[in-house]
Amino acid sequence: MGTKERREREKDQTRTAILDAARELFVGQGYEGVSMRAIAEKIEYSPTVIYNYFKDKDALILELCQGDFGQLADQMHEAVRIEDPVERLRECGREYVRFALSYPNHYRLMFMTPYPLRMDDPDHQHHKSEVKGNPDTDAYAFVTALVQQVAAAGRLRDPVPNIELITQTLWAGLHGVISLEIAMGCDKEWTDWQPIEMRTEAMLDTFSSGLFVPAMESPATKTEAR
Amino acid sequence: MGTKERREREKDQTRTAILDAARELFVGQGYEGVSMRAIAEKIEYSPTVIYNYFKDKDALILELCQGDFGQLADQMHEAVRIEDPVERLRECGREYVRFALSYPNHYRLMFMTPYPLRMDDPDHQHHKSEVKGNPDTDAYAFVTALVQQVAAAGRLRDPVPNIELITQTLWAGLHGVISLEIAMGCDKEWTDWQPIEMRTEAMLDTFSSGLFVPAMESPATKTEAR
Repeated sequence: MGTKERREREKDQTRTAILDAARELFVGQGYEGVSMRAIAEKIEYSPTVIYNYFKDKDALILELCQGDFGQLADQMHEAVRIEDPVERLRECGREYVRFALSYPNHYRLMFMTPYPLRMDDPDHQHHKSEVKGNPDTDAYAFVTALVQQVAAAGRLRDPVPNIELITQTLWAGLHGVISLEIAMGCDKEWTDWQPIEMRTEAMLDTFSSGLFVPAMESPATKTEAR
Repeated sequence: MGTKERREREKDQTRTAILDAARELFVGQGYEGVSMRAIAEKIEYSPTVIYNYFKDKDALILELCQGDFGQLADQMHEAVRIEDPVERLRECGREYVRFALSYPNHYRLMFMTPYPLRMDDPDHQHHKSEVKGNPDTDAYAFVTALVQQVAAAGRLRDPVPNIELITQTLWAGLHGVISLEIAMGCDKEWTDWQPIEMRTEAMLDTFSSGLFVPAMESPATKTEAR
């Protein structure tokens, strides 16, 4: 490996170390409570080094979000190929839970930590216009698209569905399973927790019975049967 | 008001000030990250004063829990009188959400902040043996009892229900609605959030269709109809 390659690799390692330290501090102490100096101290760099990589905390959180949401999207890559739209959505739900449990700090930062990004920041505006509404990069748009696919297959119970509301219900249900596990999982002495896989399936089954209809009952199939 | 009464009132006010400061700091910085000194500084007392009221952080969190869970139980007082067990459970769910939104810091501490209580602490053991499993003081036991009432009325879909699993599914669903609102509510520019009341009802409706059966379809009523 040449000098230039080694230098690039070192830069990547430093970048990753800064990002990991920032994530951990944001999650533990809240976005507002963490300074660039504190992040530098955590990994024993001078603040100047950090500023060479990221101009401010907003730049850091923006890069963390992009990376972490990208990783979540990758995790769902296989699941989206499933043909049955309800089974596709359920498998994506399982992957969502697996992602959260594999990377609890990623999950905490993405969905459990408020961080107000400044609206007047052009980087943020640029990020938003690139990412928002695109199912490949915007996790919310991704789930909305899954729900729309279920609707298009005639598999929603409600004949006049509120797609946003259903999306938010699905998200809330799985987020609840995950966040109780992440935040209260230590609390084994108060609650006889059923295994997390069972809790995930129970939530997905509740959605299946409560929001969806089985393939054979969907209007499309009924029409074929007549 | 006599001197003694005034002194008692002042003591109560100091106690409440300490508890409120502790709750806010635990929620913002995590239980582990907060010292008795930091709590004292926040309300501009000397640490010595605080130690006159609470011997350590465990004593503080124990009193916070007892008070906050008691307040939650009070809020559900009216709802438990509802005759129909499914409607009773739904209304308790609504009160749970109302409590969380009225006292977000209470809720954060109760259900979103891990705090390991030392098992060897006799105060904690005493608290646990007094509180655990009693629906009047243990929120989890309270919800379990509600689910058992629904089961006893023949209103659960599943003929061989796992009561713990259903309790944990209900809890997770509403916790998800609440915690997305509390932690991500600021994030209005990414998500077209439906009103929280609608999101609560949508979750309760999903439970009603997914987990429960309407009164007229329950086996008990069916038998009468024959």
